[in-house]
Amino acid sequence: MTNASAIQARNYAPTMVWEGRTDGYLRMIDQTLLPVEHKEIDCRDVETVWEAIKSLRVRGAPAIGVAAAYGVVLGLQNHTSEAGSNFRKKFQEVADYLAGSRPTAVNLFWALDRLRGLVAEKENLTPAELLNDLLREAQAIEVEDREMCAAIGRHGAPLLPQECGVLTHCNAGGLATAGDGTALAVFFKAAEDGKKIHVYADETRPLLQGARLTTWELQQRGVPVTLICDSMAGWVMKEGKIDAVVVGADRIAANGDAANKIGTYSVAHLAKAHGVPFYVAAPTSTFDLSLETGAGIPIEERGAKEITHGFGRQTAPEGVGVYNPAFDVTPATLIAGIITEKGVIQPVTEANVRRVVGS
Amino acid sequence: MTNASAIQARNYAPTMVWEGRTDGYLRMIDQTLLPVEHKEIDCRDVETVWEAIKSLRVRGAPAIGVAAAYGVVLGLQNHTSEAGSNFRKKFQEVADYLAGSRPTAVNLFWALDRLRGLVAEKENLTPAELLNDLLREAQAIEVEDREMCAAIGRHGAPLLPQECGVLTHCNAGGLATAGDGTALAVFFKAAEDGKKIHVYADETRPLLQGARLTTWELQQRGVPVTLICDSMAGWVMKEGKIDAVVVGADRIAANGDAANKIGTYSVAHLAKAHGVPFYVAAPTSTFDLSLETGAGIPIEERGAKEITHGFGRQTAPEGVGVYNPAFDVTPATLIAGIITEKGVIQPVTEANVRRVVGS
Repeated sequence: MTNASAIQARNYAPTMVWEGRTDGYLRMIDQTLLPVEHKEIDCRDVETVWEAIKSLRVRGAPAIGVAAAYGVVLGLQNHTSEAGSNFRKKFQEVADYLAGSRPTAVNLFWALDRLRGLVAEKENLTPAELLNDLLREAQAIEVEDREMCAAIGRHGAPLLPQECGVLTHCNAGGLATAGDGTALAVFFKAAEDGKKIHVYADETRPLLQGARLTTWELQQRGVPVTLICDSMAGWVMKEGKIDAVVVGADRIAANGDAANKIGTYSVAHLAKAHGVPFYVAAPTSTFDLSLETGAGIPIEERGAKEITHGFGRQTAPEGVGVYNPAFDVTPATLIAGIITEKGVIQPVTEANVRRVVGS
Repeated sequence: MTNASAIQARNYAPTMVWEGRTDGYLRMIDQTLLPVEHKEIDCRDVETVWEAIKSLRVRGAPAIGVAAAYGVVLGLQNHTSEAGSNFRKKFQEVADYLAGSRPTAVNLFWALDRLRGLVAEKENLTPAELLNDLLREAQAIEVEDREMCAAIGRHGAPLLPQECGVLTHCNAGGLATAGDGTALAVFFKAAEDGKKIHVYADETRPLLQGARLTTWELQQRGVPVTLICDSMAGWVMKEGKIDAVVVGADRIAANGDAANKIGTYSVAHLAKAHGVPFYVAAPTSTFDLSLETGAGIPIEERGAKEITHGFGRQTAPEGVGVYNPAFDVTPATLIAGIITEKGVIQPVTEANVRRVVGS
């Protein structure tokens, strides 16, 4: 038996799947219920998709892009009998509506812009034909996403030592994409290649995506994982347990500054203090080259109750002041490399970003 | 109205209080119920005190020392009719039993050793007389603890700017002592002196002492406080919100290496990366000069369920591996100063530690 056989194929339902043709619906795992309950929900209208994105039933930048693309189809499927101009107006309404579900996820805008481009280009199609093309484009985005994950895994796995401890924050796994994930794709590929890796997963307060989702995905596929609290990341580095950090990203500026789940910035500083390389794994669709640096990335602030009532029980006094930024921005200077589907950006400089992303 | 009037006197029950004489009992706030419920429990035997320390109903190094001293009285109050030698043997049993309740809190051993010294010295007393002296010694430890807090506040407050944001981790407050706390005493005194301070409190996973206790104490006394997740500490520093960090300690080695709640080590590194001074506030009883460095400090590992089932809800998959060290050790090199009741150790060197602690 080789080490490689230790990793198991994905044996749980896909993060999301489109059922049927243009009159079909979107089935997705309700990630807010994991890991206690593994339940799927069927989205039969665009409002349900919007709510699922807003409430993090589907989350992770690439997965949100795929979900939004299918959401467009749902928002239009009852409008094919309308006049072409009305149908196209309705398309813009639906796309704008979906764009408001999460302000930080650049892949959301990227996916919607792809559909906008298609609608602009195919000006002679009937509403029914256009809807058919929109569904095909959404499916293409999904397939490309799966291939993107595999390519990130192939580019990232060689960066890890043959035997290593790795740390990740939040969930940049299969649940965050249509495929094997971004950061986790690197771990899955390394394990597949026979590397002996042990993953330390930050629980990732306030919403515990690390505790709930990352540990679950790794456990499902037989990759050794240890759950820690976010506050323990520095100490496990100090104890010599961590050889590399790999995290995902929600938006990356032209200079390589990367927005990701709150806490990523702290982990990057801790990695630097301990001489541990800190990698970001993200598709090129995550880059927003219109932003020179991370200073231009808007930071979503979320509600206080995520912190004060997070675990089904009140854990802070009534009326206490709370600060709950959902993201932070890690400066490019702390990032050893950005692993994309087109290759690794290393060192992280604007020139290298533009060369790889623009290629 | 001056700024000074903004801070309110402590208006909640004392952390613990001895009711009655040698046949009395120990009443304490059950801190596991805060902030939702403010309830006191009466400890009428040593087993209840042991359980209260073990289960963190009373926590914080100085408070544990006071509780253990009263616990000794409870463990002996039904034995005064025994022969002197039996009574003294029973004393050793009770002290050894209490010493096993928390392995890291050096104040626990320090308080018990004070009582051991008293028993060894007063060899001619009857059991009833000795019990009376033990109660008086426990009360002296409590009074000294209160004075210690006030002195730490006086020495520490001048270190803070006139207007500042400060960050603390865990709870080194009045609830952790018989008085105003250690780190929080510095904040209370600064506010009393008319300084305009705003406290950022790390929630402090897994047991949320920051969310549950620190915010509550500050709120009760009208000191502005904002609750954040542990993972946000680096980001609020980056945003320029923090001018100083002050935390408590559970054990400090001769060179100044300080063990404190898990996560403190990360905060110290983040403070260094952002040029923010990081202070430890602790009584001299926290020092263990028999340890040359922090490498000799044992780290208590606690159960997995504190992380996976923290607050009435399962937040990680069944059977996932968990690492739960309760403490970490911050190296003296990251500490700008140690604020004790005898003055500030600054810079933190073994010579300065021995000079201040030994004085």
